[in-house]
Amino acid sequence: MPVHVEHEQFQQIGERLLNAMDANNTERVQEILNQDLSAVDIAHIIESTPSKRRADIWKFLSESQKGEVISHLSDDLQLHYLTKMSPEQVLEAIQDLDSDDFADVLQQLPETNRIAVLHSMEPEDRREVEELLAYPEDTAGGLMNPEVLTIRANVTLDVVLRYLRRQSDLPDQFDSLYVVNRNDQLVGTLPLHALLLGDPDTTVREVMNSDIEGIPAASRDSDVAKLFANHDWISAPVVDEKGKLLGQITIDDIVDVIREEADHTVMSMAGLDEDEDAFAPVWSSAKGRAVWLGLNLLTAFIAALVILNFEDAIAMITALAVMNPVVASMGGVAGSQTLTLVIRAQATGKINASNYLWLLGREFGVGLINGFLWAIVTAFVCWLLFSNVQLAIVSGIAILANITIAKISGALLPVILEKLKIDPALSGSVILTTVTDAVGFFTLLGLATWYLL
Amino acid sequence: MPVHVEHEQFQQIGERLLNAMDANNTERVQEILNQDLSAVDIAHIIESTPSKRRADIWKFLSESQKGEVISHLSDDLQLHYLTKMSPEQVLEAIQDLDSDDFADVLQQLPETNRIAVLHSMEPEDRREVEELLAYPEDTAGGLMNPEVLTIRANVTLDVVLRYLRRQSDLPDQFDSLYVVNRNDQLVGTLPLHALLLGDPDTTVREVMNSDIEGIPAASRDSDVAKLFANHDWISAPVVDEKGKLLGQITIDDIVDVIREEADHTVMSMAGLDEDEDAFAPVWSSAKGRAVWLGLNLLTAFIAALVILNFEDAIAMITALAVMNPVVASMGGVAGSQTLTLVIRAQATGKINASNYLWLLGREFGVGLINGFLWAIVTAFVCWLLFSNVQLAIVSGIAILANITIAKISGALLPVILEKLKIDPALSGSVILTTVTDAVGFFTLLGLATWYLL
Repeated sequence: MPVHVEHEQFQQIGERLLNAMDANNTERVQEILNQDLSAVDIAHIIESTPSKRRADIWKFLSESQKGEVISHLSDDLQLHYLTKMSPEQVLEAIQDLDSDDFADVLQQLPETNRIAVLHSMEPEDRREVEELLAYPEDTAGGLMNPEVLTIRANVTLDVVLRYLRRQSDLPDQFDSLYVVNRNDQLVGTLPLHALLLGDPDTTVREVMNSDIEGIPAASRDSDVAKLFANHDWISAPVVDEKGKLLGQITIDDIVDVIREEADHTVMSMAGLDEDEDAFAPVWSSAKGRAVWLGLNLLTAFIAALVILNFEDAIAMITALAVMNPVVASMGGVAGSQTLTLVIRAQATGKINASNYLWLLGREFGVGLINGFLWAIVTAFVCWLLFSNVQLAIVSGIAILANITIAKISGALLPVILEKLKIDPALSGSVILTTVTDAVGFFTLLGLATWYLL
Repeated sequence: MPVHVEHEQFQQIGERLLNAMDANNTERVQEILNQDLSAVDIAHIIESTPSKRRADIWKFLSESQKGEVISHLSDDLQLHYLTKMSPEQVLEAIQDLDSDDFADVLQQLPETNRIAVLHSMEPEDRREVEELLAYPEDTAGGLMNPEVLTIRANVTLDVVLRYLRRQSDLPDQFDSLYVVNRNDQLVGTLPLHALLLGDPDTTVREVMNSDIEGIPAASRDSDVAKLFANHDWISAPVVDEKGKLLGQITIDDIVDVIREEADHTVMSMAGLDEDEDAFAPVWSSAKGRAVWLGLNLLTAFIAALVILNFEDAIAMITALAVMNPVVASMGGVAGSQTLTLVIRAQATGKINASNYLWLLGREFGVGLINGFLWAIVTAFVCWLLFSNVQLAIVSGIAILANITIAKISGALLPVILEKLKIDPALSGSVILTTVTDAVGFFTLLGLATWYLL
């Protein structure tokens, strides 16, 4: 597999590919695809190419390449290509994949296509894959690869070494052997270096690492990712309720989980699908974004309706129309800082019953401090603009109230939403801005009506 | 190292610890810290604990525990504890760390403390660490660990195996040996499984993987992370300009890089420091947030000043004060969707000269489609609210203009900012909302003045 250390270098090759395609220089294209680029690189180029041109690249790929490439594409693109292929083509394309990647790809297919592919498989391969498909994609079972090397505790390292030499090929990223009893229950692991360091005549039991617990197949993938990060694992065994060894999870799958989690937070805070294809055609992109905009229009109107009740105030002091968005936007930003902080703390498992109240109080304090600071500044600027002391005071108080309430809302929302099984990263920001807008408008215009008219 | 598979289970232990501390049950606390929790878990608990209580936990840690724990704390907390310790204490605490982690910790210290610690070290250890400190933290050189096992190509696998058995201990996460020539230049790698599978009498040269290029020590850590993710590496060699082997990077460091990148995007989009301590005291948190709020106040006023020029319009048609924030907020959300998408595409290296114009055009199309859709809806709702057809038309046109301009700005901003060496994730959102507010206010009020008055 070729290695492209520098991002720039990789981009140059990508552009040479597109140029060769424009020039219809078939040999050149073939050469670049087969020699200069790995399957991962090709997947990356396809994802970075406007939808129309993707088909051109796809045509040049060999069946075996297609499988490798598909396994590295984002879910929606996998579906796009797989649904265009016959069950036989799909099978031929993905047959060389590790069975966990194989299962992940099948999981993208619609029920009927998936069954068709499974039917065209050898019985025992098919059984293995079906077992994998039984686990949800986002669990340890969905991440694991059933191909593991198991040994017994009572054999000597020398026997193990000879056994390994007889293996035709070993799982990739294979750093330890799993020791099981006669019921296939995990009793320990034998790291390769222990195998190498140990005296050939010692038994596995003497050198194996036996204080390891297997990961239950039902564990959430995010929990598994935390374990890998915390314990610097390269691979870990997966077991069922009875402690029976089912397979192993390797670090490469974990890196994907971490990347996806990150994408999810960033993208969903802007109301985008974490898997949103950056180069999807206009129409499908427009559809994807419309829902969120519609939701925001609804909430924006709800917030703006508050203004309706104060038309007299605005008619008399049009300066209020100027201060309105200022007060609202300060609340919005102050709230989103807290919202983001709390959502990240949730994602990294740093929030629990014992520290949450403290956090809430801290944000209240932060709100008061920043509220007072910016209330004074706002009042001053407002006075400069309109040389109206009462209006300046009212604006200042409105800023103080809105920032403080925004901080508290930002800290409460994610926890409430999680309790309601609603994703805070997705819905938090739109709800928060509605609150901060409404509170902002209400405090400013309400105070003005009561105090200035 | 104990393993806590379930997040809940871990939280329970954390709470038992705090309870034991409240009860001043020293033995119990010691027992939990030494038996139930790993250094990573303790670091996690400290980061999840309000600042006051952290000191109590810290008191209970042994010197050696402190080092392990410190190496897993976030940068600002590392600094907090290290600066309180004497050079000797620091050295005693971190002496057992791998030299790359050792160097990372030292990098947190102020110049003077760092030199003091280095002076209290053995000359050759010190030289090794100083070499590491020469590389910036965010480069391959800063990530690498110089402790690698090197072999020559002309020896037999049997010799290598005996050589390994003589090693007192092997680097952790060690999956391959590095083959170098007499000038210490990297000529290939010998994966452990190749060593295990191969016939003991074959030479290293026959089985080694020789098409691997070392990573230049100056490569950016984000590029290195992409390489690891793309090629499913567990470790990779780092070389200097002459191809001399300097050390190796292991996947555990890469997982940290990926996590930090994710945090950076999410946090900085809300104007927070990616390393922001979720449980810092009120005052330091307030300071950290103030700058961002001040910046927003400035931009909010700049945007709101647009309204100033249309006081007559608002005085006559106060309904404009209601429609104002609606138009502005639709632009804000539409723009932030594009902004987020483009920033993520930049972070994953999917944007380049050849596809950017297409992306820009696509976003323009998406803007037009969504603009028309929500213009019609807005106009209708506006007509329901104020039964004023002209105002409804004006509001609709303003929404269309603002959404379309917002989409284009959202696609242009990140690329312009990157050219200006300004972090798009950090400054993108605040600049964008200023644009969308100003454009929103201007189109709505401008059209109203021209068409309605």
